[in-house]
Amino acid sequence: MNLEMNFNGSVDSTPGFSAAGTACGIKASGLPDLAVILACGPCTAAGVFTTNRLQAAPVLFCKQVLAAAADNVRAVVVNSGNANACTGAQGRDNVRHTAELAQAAFGLGQSKALVMSTGIIGEQLPMDKLESGIKALGGLADSTDTDGSGKIFARAIMTTDTVEKKLSLTFELDGVTVTIGAAAKGSGMIHPNMATMLGFFTTDAAISPLALAVALKRATGRSFNMISVDGDQSPNDSVFVLANGKAGAPMIESENSPGFAPFCDALEQASVALAKKIAADGEGATKLVEIEVSGAASCQDAERVARSVANSPLVKTAVFGQDPNWGRIVGAVGYSGVDVNPDLINIYFDNLPAFVAGEPAGTDGAELASKLAGEEVLIRIELGMGNERCRFWTCDMTYDYIRINADYHT
Amino acid sequence: MNLEMNFNGSVDSTPGFSAAGTACGIKASGLPDLAVILACGPCTAAGVFTTNRLQAAPVLFCKQVLAAAADNVRAVVVNSGNANACTGAQGRDNVRHTAELAQAAFGLGQSKALVMSTGIIGEQLPMDKLESGIKALGGLADSTDTDGSGKIFARAIMTTDTVEKKLSLTFELDGVTVTIGAAAKGSGMIHPNMATMLGFFTTDAAISPLALAVALKRATGRSFNMISVDGDQSPNDSVFVLANGKAGAPMIESENSPGFAPFCDALEQASVALAKKIAADGEGATKLVEIEVSGAASCQDAERVARSVANSPLVKTAVFGQDPNWGRIVGAVGYSGVDVNPDLINIYFDNLPAFVAGEPAGTDGAELASKLAGEEVLIRIELGMGNERCRFWTCDMTYDYIRINADYHT
Repeated sequence: MNLEMNFNGSVDSTPGFSAAGTACGIKASGLPDLAVILACGPCTAAGVFTTNRLQAAPVLFCKQVLAAAADNVRAVVVNSGNANACTGAQGRDNVRHTAELAQAAFGLGQSKALVMSTGIIGEQLPMDKLESGIKALGGLADSTDTDGSGKIFARAIMTTDTVEKKLSLTFELDGVTVTIGAAAKGSGMIHPNMATMLGFFTTDAAISPLALAVALKRATGRSFNMISVDGDQSPNDSVFVLANGKAGAPMIESENSPGFAPFCDALEQASVALAKKIAADGEGATKLVEIEVSGAASCQDAERVARSVANSPLVKTAVFGQDPNWGRIVGAVGYSGVDVNPDLINIYFDNLPAFVAGEPAGTDGAELASKLAGEEVLIRIELGMGNERCRFWTCDMTYDYIRINADYHT
Repeated sequence: MNLEMNFNGSVDSTPGFSAAGTACGIKASGLPDLAVILACGPCTAAGVFTTNRLQAAPVLFCKQVLAAAADNVRAVVVNSGNANACTGAQGRDNVRHTAELAQAAFGLGQSKALVMSTGIIGEQLPMDKLESGIKALGGLADSTDTDGSGKIFARAIMTTDTVEKKLSLTFELDGVTVTIGAAAKGSGMIHPNMATMLGFFTTDAAISPLALAVALKRATGRSFNMISVDGDQSPNDSVFVLANGKAGAPMIESENSPGFAPFCDALEQASVALAKKIAADGEGATKLVEIEVSGAASCQDAERVARSVANSPLVKTAVFGQDPNWGRIVGAVGYSGVDVNPDLINIYFDNLPAFVAGEPAGTDGAELASKLAGEEVLIRIELGMGNERCRFWTCDMTYDYIRINADYHT
């Protein structure tokens, strides 16, 4: 598929969407902490949410909105600095009130607003600051400074992220140019919070709520669900997509529609690109690590093996130390819970064999170590049990990971 | 039960067992790296082994020995510095040959020797060094310097452990004094190895192979299986017990024998004491963390919740930073996979409530932080789903963990 990706783009690169961001005072630092995506008309919308049993108030709220009005969403309001998680009944009231404020400030009429939060856990939202912030955004969202707004949106959703994560891409559907704009944040955290991953997509494709939900689930399954920084999972993790149908391409009614496959492919490529940015920007990370598992009996097996290796602190510290410690990788494969036969396993650093058919490959250690010297590391694991495969992304574990997560004293 | 524990004791504190250790040159440092437990006659024996799919050669060998001769074991030979894991057919030959060398050097006759290794993964054992070492041990094992020998045994099985871990205890069975002697190592590692946990018990109780196996499985299930340093699991993890019956207490034939329950209780107490020493000596650890989960619907649920919290890098770094970051604990409970209801969860640091019934408890942060200031930290989690409970031990995650595991360059 002919697809053009542009890392200067953002959620407002899609025709018919605007974005805005501001600092309303939730973050003590004074950095931007409130943002909105606004559509010029009602959109089809879908969301994918954390599987954590503990679900933050905005997650519960957005699930309700999408269950009732997945064909009539016009805005997404996001604050950083406070997660509105573990906040009980008052937290649930606050997210409803935030949506009402947005409804009024952005003149949404009968259309709905989604609301998401990321940041401190266990503290109530400062509703006075949020209220004046949303009113301020009401004016900003009309701005025609689209490029700058998309960048501010991406910055306003950040917590301990060191770079903003955003892009846009275009592709053709039946001769019509379709756009996807996107922004994401993660895996940052501020006290006392945990890593949260958020993703936001806009598109001018015309697609039914059901087809959009299937496409989003498929894309996140191969991207945002295939990354980890430390294996911890937040009560706020969410990915949203809004589709306004303005491009004029044929309607994607279901999985059988001709446009469904190319749309899925485009959404997946955008998701993978953002997911890799999140893994590379993991707290304290110096390297992006891609784990490629092949020869698995099932996709689930491939993912379990990849996740086990990606979450192993021993593997992650070895990568930081540029130590080609394949024994730790074999160990993590072994305790993944997947039925494997050590005598069939091959492990490579990039193209260099480290472990072949149950025995050391005998490759020179310094040569193996050279494959860990760069900013991107590729670990390839062949299981010899079947034909399924997956790709998974993580980062190394460093002194800075400890510093960021330990050096906050209440 | 009236039980006396003595941390000066070791595996040779049990009448009828001797121990020895030496440096045979496997460790480049010249530190002790070879040790033996020798019984004066045939023993009942049992073992519990790693569930990692990757099983080191000595694990496979010991399983065979115990399947064939669980009533006729007289020695356990252990080397540190080399794990004999990922070593293929030659590794399997080497462990058999080591057992033969021990058979000859210690004059075991028809009785069997168990063999265990811990250390570097993926390198073949230096059999010449091992051979001269075992011959040297043949003379040492007759030594009457029992206290010193038990200490050397505990030192010779260490890898990156900073303290030796050993104890003995006595208790009464039907008016007869019975002894359990023990030593353990873990969770140390040396390049390129992974954390390995080993435990060795001797006793003069008289007990059938089957009853001994059940007792060991029960004791390890509540101790060595309830600790973690980084969640990584080694292909060498093993716990052994040898029983020589010399005390003269009534034979424990089965789980229904009167002596079974008190013997299990004593073995469990010895196991828990050693397991806590392992957790406290975790790589780079500054604090021992006890996680007490109660109100679970099942024992399995309690353990899954405890393990999820214990393995969370975010929880472990927060403890290091003395940051009473209960949000991270709630998060780890939430993603444990156990069916929980956030509105029923209570979390305490020691006796201070942090999170009660789905909302922040409002306890002063500095007061909560004071509960993290000492060398032992107690995190209590009430799930409100049932009546089952468990205790789990781990340690904090520190800069030194990264240093130990990353700062080795091939």
